[in-house]
Amino acid sequence: MKIDVLIIGSSVAGLVAATTGKKAYPDKNFLLISKQTKTMVTCAIPYVFGELGSTDNNVVPVHRVLEKINSNIIHSEVVAINREEKSVEILSGTIIYYDRLVIATGSSTIKPTWLKGRDLDNVFYVPKEKLYIDSMQEKLRNLHNIVIVGAGFIGVEMAEELKKAGKNITLIEKESNILHSAFDNNLTDVIKEIIIDEEINVLTSTIVNEIIGDNRVEGVRLNNNQLLNADAVILSMGYTPNSDLAINAGLTIRSNGSIAVDEYMRTEDKDIFAVGDCAEKRDFITGKQNYSMLSSIAATEGRIAGMNIFELTSIKSFSGTISIYSTTIGGMGIGVAGLTERKAHQEGYKIVTGEYWGRDKHPYNLEGSNVQYVKLIVSVDSGLILGASVYGGQSAGELVNMIGVVIQNRMSINSLLTLQIGSHPLLTDSPATYPLIMAAERAYYSNKV
Amino acid sequence: MKIDVLIIGSSVAGLVAATTGKKAYPDKNFLLISKQTKTMVTCAIPYVFGELGSTDNNVVPVHRVLEKINSNIIHSEVVAINREEKSVEILSGTIIYYDRLVIATGSSTIKPTWLKGRDLDNVFYVPKEKLYIDSMQEKLRNLHNIVIVGAGFIGVEMAEELKKAGKNITLIEKESNILHSAFDNNLTDVIKEIIIDEEINVLTSTIVNEIIGDNRVEGVRLNNNQLLNADAVILSMGYTPNSDLAINAGLTIRSNGSIAVDEYMRTEDKDIFAVGDCAEKRDFITGKQNYSMLSSIAATEGRIAGMNIFELTSIKSFSGTISIYSTTIGGMGIGVAGLTERKAHQEGYKIVTGEYWGRDKHPYNLEGSNVQYVKLIVSVDSGLILGASVYGGQSAGELVNMIGVVIQNRMSINSLLTLQIGSHPLLTDSPATYPLIMAAERAYYSNKV
Repeated sequence: MKIDVLIIGSSVAGLVAATTGKKAYPDKNFLLISKQTKTMVTCAIPYVFGELGSTDNNVVPVHRVLEKINSNIIHSEVVAINREEKSVEILSGTIIYYDRLVIATGSSTIKPTWLKGRDLDNVFYVPKEKLYIDSMQEKLRNLHNIVIVGAGFIGVEMAEELKKAGKNITLIEKESNILHSAFDNNLTDVIKEIIIDEEINVLTSTIVNEIIGDNRVEGVRLNNNQLLNADAVILSMGYTPNSDLAINAGLTIRSNGSIAVDEYMRTEDKDIFAVGDCAEKRDFITGKQNYSMLSSIAATEGRIAGMNIFELTSIKSFSGTISIYSTTIGGMGIGVAGLTERKAHQEGYKIVTGEYWGRDKHPYNLEGSNVQYVKLIVSVDSGLILGASVYGGQSAGELVNMIGVVIQNRMSINSLLTLQIGSHPLLTDSPATYPLIMAAERAYYSNKV
Repeated sequence: MKIDVLIIGSSVAGLVAATTGKKAYPDKNFLLISKQTKTMVTCAIPYVFGELGSTDNNVVPVHRVLEKINSNIIHSEVVAINREEKSVEILSGTIIYYDRLVIATGSSTIKPTWLKGRDLDNVFYVPKEKLYIDSMQEKLRNLHNIVIVGAGFIGVEMAEELKKAGKNITLIEKESNILHSAFDNNLTDVIKEIIIDEEINVLTSTIVNEIIGDNRVEGVRLNNNQLLNADAVILSMGYTPNSDLAINAGLTIRSNGSIAVDEYMRTEDKDIFAVGDCAEKRDFITGKQNYSMLSSIAATEGRIAGMNIFELTSIKSFSGTISIYSTTIGGMGIGVAGLTERKAHQEGYKIVTGEYWGRDKHPYNLEGSNVQYVKLIVSVDSGLILGASVYGGQSAGELVNMIGVVIQNRMSINSLLTLQIGSHPLLTDSPATYPLIMAAERAYYSNKV
């Protein structure tokens, strides 16, 4: 069998590479190979445990999408890539030849080999596998006291959803604050207060030294020697790129295990592309490795690979990853784009910041109005916007995307001072005090003094 | 009395000129002169008749704002500007000398002098005057059948709010669709359906030839000779710049009555600035006169005047007005930025469009998810984004602002194909089908064929 474009993986990176590639090159044929018979909406996995109720409500309609673009999927596993022959071998032994190959194998949960007790029953991870999540959900049904280790986005979202489902939750984070790598302290403090109000127990600067129990989880021992009772432990300690296939094929791998790619998402083998969590990311601002793993980044990378898969075009290449995160906590939207203040300091930028607390409707006495907070990180030298965080109502998701566009265009603080926006009482703050512009003014004048 | 910066008007343009100017030049003194003892949040006036309940809930805290910047306001009327003396005369006869003058006199409702019956009792306008709106609201309390003439934003918003308050509403528009100048037909059809569902009577391609009644309104006669009973008529036929003071001072006035200004919002007299509805607007895309009157534009112009009032800086000048409108209809957000398809055709651009109906959460079965529609207008020649319309949930307001940033940066369709965004199940569509990017893809590929 010979395929024009063979894609390993059916999650967002692989699927978008296929749909975008087919639009650009309609005469080529595309085939996906996926281990998963059903692909989940990865970023919505925590909501399976709450609002969505079941993984069955969280399935990407892969077959329908592929049918629309007249393409197919094989549910199997690729066991090897043969670069000389331009072929892959799947589990059944079948060899499939490709003209172009896209590796979109994603990432797996980090498993702390050093942690005693990690093999007990009722120790869970949050992988992107439907059958695992189904089984985990079933087992959690009768377990009440749940310890979640790692307070990144997945940990915090899992904590909220399981709390809503009536569980007793303890969230443990080794850093001094939750969501430590995504937000600066002023915002993580606000978030922490919200989840404490929801009666989630939060232990920061805390390490789990051991999971305790015979056969099944009975508790955890903390670094201060405290013992916590627990019926289940969820280890949400991050993800690591799935790059074994690429390693075995002799492709260059970065120190974090990701597959090295150029600005077209090509590996060093010009016929092999890598996209999504398994692919290297270079930071838009710093130019360094960026370790974000987000389905939104995976989608962009899938698009870039798809558009360039047969013909490169410099205007459709990738100028580096801007990490744009958003989530909800306590019903509020929260997001970040680019560098945090902490990260900017670590990298050695001389910066000023400006922050402003406004609201998402005006006048402020309108029913249902929420706060809207914007913090900008600005380079003193160039005046460029390096990053921002946002906190507010439902519109915070698009507001942080708006700031993403600001960063992508390398806009300066001056251009934000004269920014044109639209406003409406029920949709935004007043144009006189639009928080993004107010934050820009504060950064600008703090710079002057 | 000698003032460094004298500002005529206390609505958004004047007030923002003061707050921004004071930040830039803290040593200068600023004085406002306003006819209004209480300034309303202009764009929220329709909501006074519904959700807000009273103008008292819709007042800009002008005194508090000015106190913060250590500045004052005189409640009086400027009767003349003396450019040679650099002074103004107020109603009491007092002369106030200025170093810089900012004219922010706003706009007044268009009064159709040709319309018979326009002086009857219970014929109303929607001016930005608190006392008028108070009296109008009081009179409307006992009037049931209301005809609104003119289905621009104010007309449509008034219709919805008065309908919610229990009135029987007929909305009459001379163009073939409501919100005709802001949106293309596919979207106005959607909006029209919503307001018809709300049991608002909508008559398009219809002209009111006469308002009928002895002393007070009893009905209207339409151009098809039909008679409609009515207890009140609200004429929302647009606004005209308040430029009498400028005319009498010999400043250049544009054909629509607005005061001519340069990119720093200076009139031809370098010591006199004009901002807001009374000032000329030049379109960002076409370079022609732009007749939009929006408080968001007024705020931007106020900022530019404030920053440049004593020292010009080319990077804080104005590159032209992008009309960015947003409103809500039937609880949904709706917005437009830049040119519509109709306007682009009228101007002679060769364009392609791309549109996409997505949702504002994902997966789509999440509770409370709304549609999210994006339509892009793209220049075939340059690939630049000329305009967009948006329809969706609460986040539509920031989404249209995001597209405003796209237009301001003169981004091309190619840069939207590779746009980086953030996504979250509860805040945005899926990154694989983010409507703005999908609309860009559709425009791009429609261009190719």
